[in-house]
Amino acid sequence: MNKINKKVKAVIIVIGNEILSGRTQESNVAFLSKWLNDLGVRVEEVRVIADDQAVIVKCINEVRKKFKYVFTTGGIGPTHDDITSRSIAKAFRLSYGYNKEAYSILKKYYKPDKFNYGRKKMAKMPDKASLIYNPSSGAPGFIVGNVYCLPGVPSILKSMVSGLTSRIVGGKKILSKTISLSTVESEIAKPLEAVQNKFFQVEIGSYPFFRLGKIGVSIVIRSTEWNKIEDCAKQIQSFVHQKKIKIIKRE
Amino acid sequence: MNKINKKVKAVIIVIGNEILSGRTQESNVAFLSKWLNDLGVRVEEVRVIADDQAVIVKCINEVRKKFKYVFTTGGIGPTHDDITSRSIAKAFRLSYGYNKEAYSILKKYYKPDKFNYGRKKMAKMPDKASLIYNPSSGAPGFIVGNVYCLPGVPSILKSMVSGLTSRIVGGKKILSKTISLSTVESEIAKPLEAVQNKFFQVEIGSYPFFRLGKIGVSIVIRSTEWNKIEDCAKQIQSFVHQKKIKIIKRE
Repeated sequence: MNKINKKVKAVIIVIGNEILSGRTQESNVAFLSKWLNDLGVRVEEVRVIADDQAVIVKCINEVRKKFKYVFTTGGIGPTHDDITSRSIAKAFRLSYGYNKEAYSILKKYYKPDKFNYGRKKMAKMPDKASLIYNPSSGAPGFIVGNVYCLPGVPSILKSMVSGLTSRIVGGKKILSKTISLSTVESEIAKPLEAVQNKFFQVEIGSYPFFRLGKIGVSIVIRSTEWNKIEDCAKQIQSFVHQKKIKIIKRE
Repeated sequence: MNKINKKVKAVIIVIGNEILSGRTQESNVAFLSKWLNDLGVRVEEVRVIADDQAVIVKCINEVRKKFKYVFTTGGIGPTHDDITSRSIAKAFRLSYGYNKEAYSILKKYYKPDKFNYGRKKMAKMPDKASLIYNPSSGAPGFIVGNVYCLPGVPSILKSMVSGLTSRIVGGKKILSKTISLSTVESEIAKPLEAVQNKFFQVEIGSYPFFRLGKIGVSIVIRSTEWNKIEDCAKQIQSFVHQKKIKIIKRE
């Protein structure tokens, strides 16, 4: 298959009881999805799973066969409930122990009397893992096979992905155009469906919004081909004009 | 099994390309998880999947056998990309068409000249679905088997769940206590692990925070038994005291 037709697919596995219990609002998925999208990789699924070794092992072994890239977030910190590294080792049937490079990075990062039990634990990884460097707080993430393990703390995760960009081989970038209208979805449902039926290689999403007291609908047109997006946008603008609906914004 | 030991498990399926692309920040899971937790139902997994009928059908048929309750969010609106209802019908091999009660609710809700194609579509559901009433915008959600279909718009979803409370039969409520400390995780990793190893029926989570310029760790103790939480908290407070760590807050 050539690059134009090849869809490169990824899954994000969020590991953390705090997300499942509702204690913590998940906030890495949107960032990772946009970053991957710019690299021509499409996130096709997200799963949030518990800090439970059997659950993690089963999930990883299922998804790593289905997707080109698997990203995990969370569970690589210093405490007992951080079991991602150990579980990934188990999933790949690799031994789990100190990664020499990670150990040396952390040893340099902390003063000798501060390089304690918890911090040493962060150097424990599956055998032969390659590192994802961490410019903000020392402790690296790692890669095993097609599984990329990142931390859960959003600011740290964000600082780490730029170093990964050159390792991701995506397909064609998914482009998009958004037309925001001063209307409600039901007013445009029928003509919008007709446009979608004409453009089967373009994905049209319709999203109502309620912002600053304003009601509206954002129509998002996505495709890897800009000319198809433009053709589709023209037809949408044409029925919008006919129905005398105000266009709030084009992005 | 009696109520004390019975874990009642749920999964949330978020249906929507806009979440997968990173365009929209997901924000229903935390709310639903907390609401379910109060009813003694534990969310054990969350999946975000695409607006794709084959994907939805496969996912629903997998999870409805594994979990007592399945909640879906998104895809029950008036536009062509809202395909949850049709897909749920397909998953259950039920016919898909107008639900009489939903049709009548929507017909009353809108003026006759406003009850258009898109709005009528919102009355289409799997055969024999029972309704989840919508006090804020008319269009109901629905229940088929153990699958509860809710809208994606957070304010509307929130207004609908209170009517569902009596239909959910949970187990014992999961209680929790949070102790927030002025420290970093690695400083407490070892003694915290020792406490967790003593209390295997209690789940101890450790979550670093960076708020208002302050660094700290929240330790969350969860169990259905309050006395076990208290016993566990005492042991944590004891090592915290020994290490002269300041307790910022107890919740």
